Amino acid sequence: MNMYEIILKSKHGEKLSDEEIKWLVKDYVDGTIPDYQVSAWLMAVNLNSMSDEETLCLTMAMKDSGGTVDLSGIDGVTVDKHSTGGVGDKTSLIIGPIAAACGVRVPKMSGKGLGHTGGTIDKLESIPGCSTHLEFDDFIALVNSTGFSIVSQSGDLVPADKKLYALRDATATVDSIPLICSSIMSKKLAMGADCILLDVKTGSGAFMKTPEDAEKLASLMVRTGVNAGKKCMAVITDMDIPLGKAVGNTLEVIEAAEVLKGNAKERLYDLCIELAADMIMMAGKGTKEECVKLAEEAVSSGRALEVFEKSIAGQGGDVSFIDNYDLLGKATTEYEVLSPSDGYIAGINSEEIGLVSLELGAGRRTKESAIDYTAGVILEKEYGDFVKKGDKLFTLYTSGKCDLKAIADKAAAAVTFSSVQPPHRDTVIKIVG
Amino acid sequence: MNMYEIILKSKHGEKLSDEEIKWLVKDYVDGTIPDYQVSAWLMAVNLNSMSDEETLCLTMAMKDSGGTVDLSGIDGVTVDKHSTGGVGDKTSLIIGPIAAACGVRVPKMSGKGLGHTGGTIDKLESIPGCSTHLEFDDFIALVNSTGFSIVSQSGDLVPADKKLYALRDATATVDSIPLICSSIMSKKLAMGADCILLDVKTGSGAFMKTPEDAEKLASLMVRTGVNAGKKCMAVITDMDIPLGKAVGNTLEVIEAAEVLKGNAKERLYDLCIELAADMIMMAGKGTKEECVKLAEEAVSSGRALEVFEKSIAGQGGDVSFIDNYDLLGKATTEYEVLSPSDGYIAGINSEEIGLVSLELGAGRRTKESAIDYTAGVILEKEYGDFVKKGDKLFTLYTSGKCDLKAIADKAAAAVTFSSVQPPHRDTVIKIVG
Repeated sequence: MNMYEIILKSKHGEKLSDEEIKWLVKDYVDGTIPDYQVSAWLMAVNLNSMSDEETLCLTMAMKDSGGTVDLSGIDGVTVDKHSTGGVGDKTSLIIGPIAAACGVRVPKMSGKGLGHTGGTIDKLESIPGCSTHLEFDDFIALVNSTGFSIVSQSGDLVPADKKLYALRDATATVDSIPLICSSIMSKKLAMGADCILLDVKTGSGAFMKTPEDAEKLASLMVRTGVNAGKKCMAVITDMDIPLGKAVGNTLEVIEAAEVLKGNAKERLYDLCIELAADMIMMAGKGTKEECVKLAEEAVSSGRALEVFEKSIAGQGGDVSFIDNYDLLGKATTEYEVLSPSDGYIAGINSEEIGLVSLELGAGRRTKESAIDYTAGVILEKEYGDFVKKGDKLFTLYTSGKCDLKAIADKAAAAVTFSSVQPPHRDTVIKIVG
Repeated sequence: MNMYEIILKSKHGEKLSDEEIKWLVKDYVDGTIPDYQVSAWLMAVNLNSMSDEETLCLTMAMKDSGGTVDLSGIDGVTVDKHSTGGVGDKTSLIIGPIAAACGVRVPKMSGKGLGHTGGTIDKLESIPGCSTHLEFDDFIALVNSTGFSIVSQSGDLVPADKKLYALRDATATVDSIPLICSSIMSKKLAMGADCILLDVKTGSGAFMKTPEDAEKLASLMVRTGVNAGKKCMAVITDMDIPLGKAVGNTLEVIEAAEVLKGNAKERLYDLCIELAADMIMMAGKGTKEECVKLAEEAVSSGRALEVFEKSIAGQGGDVSFIDNYDLLGKATTEYEVLSPSDGYIAGINSEEIGLVSLELGAGRRTKESAIDYTAGVILEKEYGDFVKKGDKLFTLYTSGKCDLKAIADKAAAAVTFSSVQPPHRDTVIKIVG
């Protein structure tokens, strides 16, 4: 095997053999192949793409580059869910408990947020006492007793992805659909659940800016998962506007609790019911229609909230915040962003709101950044609402020092106004697989 | 400036600014930008190409990355000539003396051969005593006295090209027309001649396999040279079959001497007259037709041979070989390759003959390889000749140990036979600029 020949093949759009891909991954992780050859190859793949067979082989080779998780100690069908990352996306905290309340086992390993997108681990860790670093046996026991647990991804899973992702991140080669697929699916397959539900976000706040690209990625990931012997489906969802009203760690935990309490029945609730029903259906609990009912009942009966409470408590979290949100800690500064004009809200740029939240302290600019859990944004108005000049658009929260006026201007600029009522937006754009 | 943004721009086919290109070259040579970012960028440029403006800017930034040669000590118009590399290409040894005999100043700096293509420096160094490492003042003095000298390229010229070329060579990013142009032209411009004649080879033995690609490269190099303020033209020549009858260092020196003596008046002679006339014309000595006559007279009068002798002697070479070629040393083994069939010779694959010569010991597999100066191939028949089965096609020469039978089979396989006389081939395919 010869890395030069491999680069040349991908540069000419020729197909690599399974042996070549396996060799590349193994010898790159070993340190035998230098970064400068792999980055040239990554750029060739970015510009010329790869076949399904190559993507599957790359995914499996990456999965096999480190340890895998053995979930055989869990009774029942396990369902994992992955979101490609968004702004205000707290669905994992909601749909895990709903699905678990319906008999599905949801053992989830997750990562931290970076840049304008938040991470589920950070949201959980904003709850006083809650740890995401459980002993493996305790994690399995918690899933067996409550049906649901989210912990931090273990360090020895898929070292190939860690090394390749760091290189892609430094060489502008992240946004390749086959490379994104292999990165996500190698980790999902290493995590060992029976079924995988993929929430592929599209729009301004997502990696896939267009529904067409989102569908390509979704379809490729589903094919890769199915080829690897998993039950796998994907839901393409709208991330052109933020999901729900809260962006920021404790703010999103509160919103998740409100949805689980049945107090919030809007767009976020609808999406959570849809995704939870898909998980329940994948676990073989009924038709989609039946599973939607099961999901709704899990919320209305309070059983989903109960799972949430027990799971958080099982991870050491103080669950008394559920009855008194002030216990999560409050931001020292609040700042109101007022509407600069009259009109219907025809757009709220997710990426910009994600960046506003980042500037307020809610996210990480680099992997080493500290997070202000209390920081974030509350959207006081929704897509389609009519507002008058001076009406409150957003409330900004921070406990740090920042130029609130400039950040408020940025938030206001993220809103598009229209003189006519904008058309209805579907949250779920398409189901794949 | 940010290398990530630069990679992203080239990946999207967007134009880089002059500042970005200058920064990239400077900071890469400094070691500030890592190889893995530059190799990703090189692949993006390979696949998306670059504009003329970017290529010119890259060329100038590379040229300015190290020292430049000051030729102001030379009286008269200086003309440099560059060949993109071929098999059996000994033209520099012939046309330099011819042009110098007509009053042109030809101060040439050259490189060593690598792979299947030979290098002029190696040919010169195969002459006993001849050094290509002259003190700069001695080089200038030799050009002033004889009109012609070829020395090894100085180490501090264009460090950016050394670093970029080594990276391109390891990452399958050599064959990009803008990158080839900037590599060649940065060195030519750093060498400081008033006029530059480019011999762009095309065909099986050349980097540019098709006349179309050769023309693109030629045209881009001429535009770049003219933009940089030089008189510049390019001749696209056929390298689908080897140039002349000899391939290998001493064998080519002998053939060059034969042409200069007026004893060889075939394809190689015609091309040398054409290229020398172009150099003479660029130096302002007359029209093309007049310059062709001047070049022919320089050979027939013996003046070109005289320049050759004086220049070699000026570099310490023992010129008595000119009257007794045996003084150059002879290969210990000769091997005849016989024709496997009857027919007209319709093709002699240059690259294969170059590889045969390499296997006999005449070339370098890596930069560190030692050369057998006596090794090489004599083509006993030419394109268009009719041969009978058993006629001698080639004579192989080597002083080393090698599997001569296998090499002979490879040489024979490089020949294409036809039952009908093949069409005439032009050596000069096109003149650009």
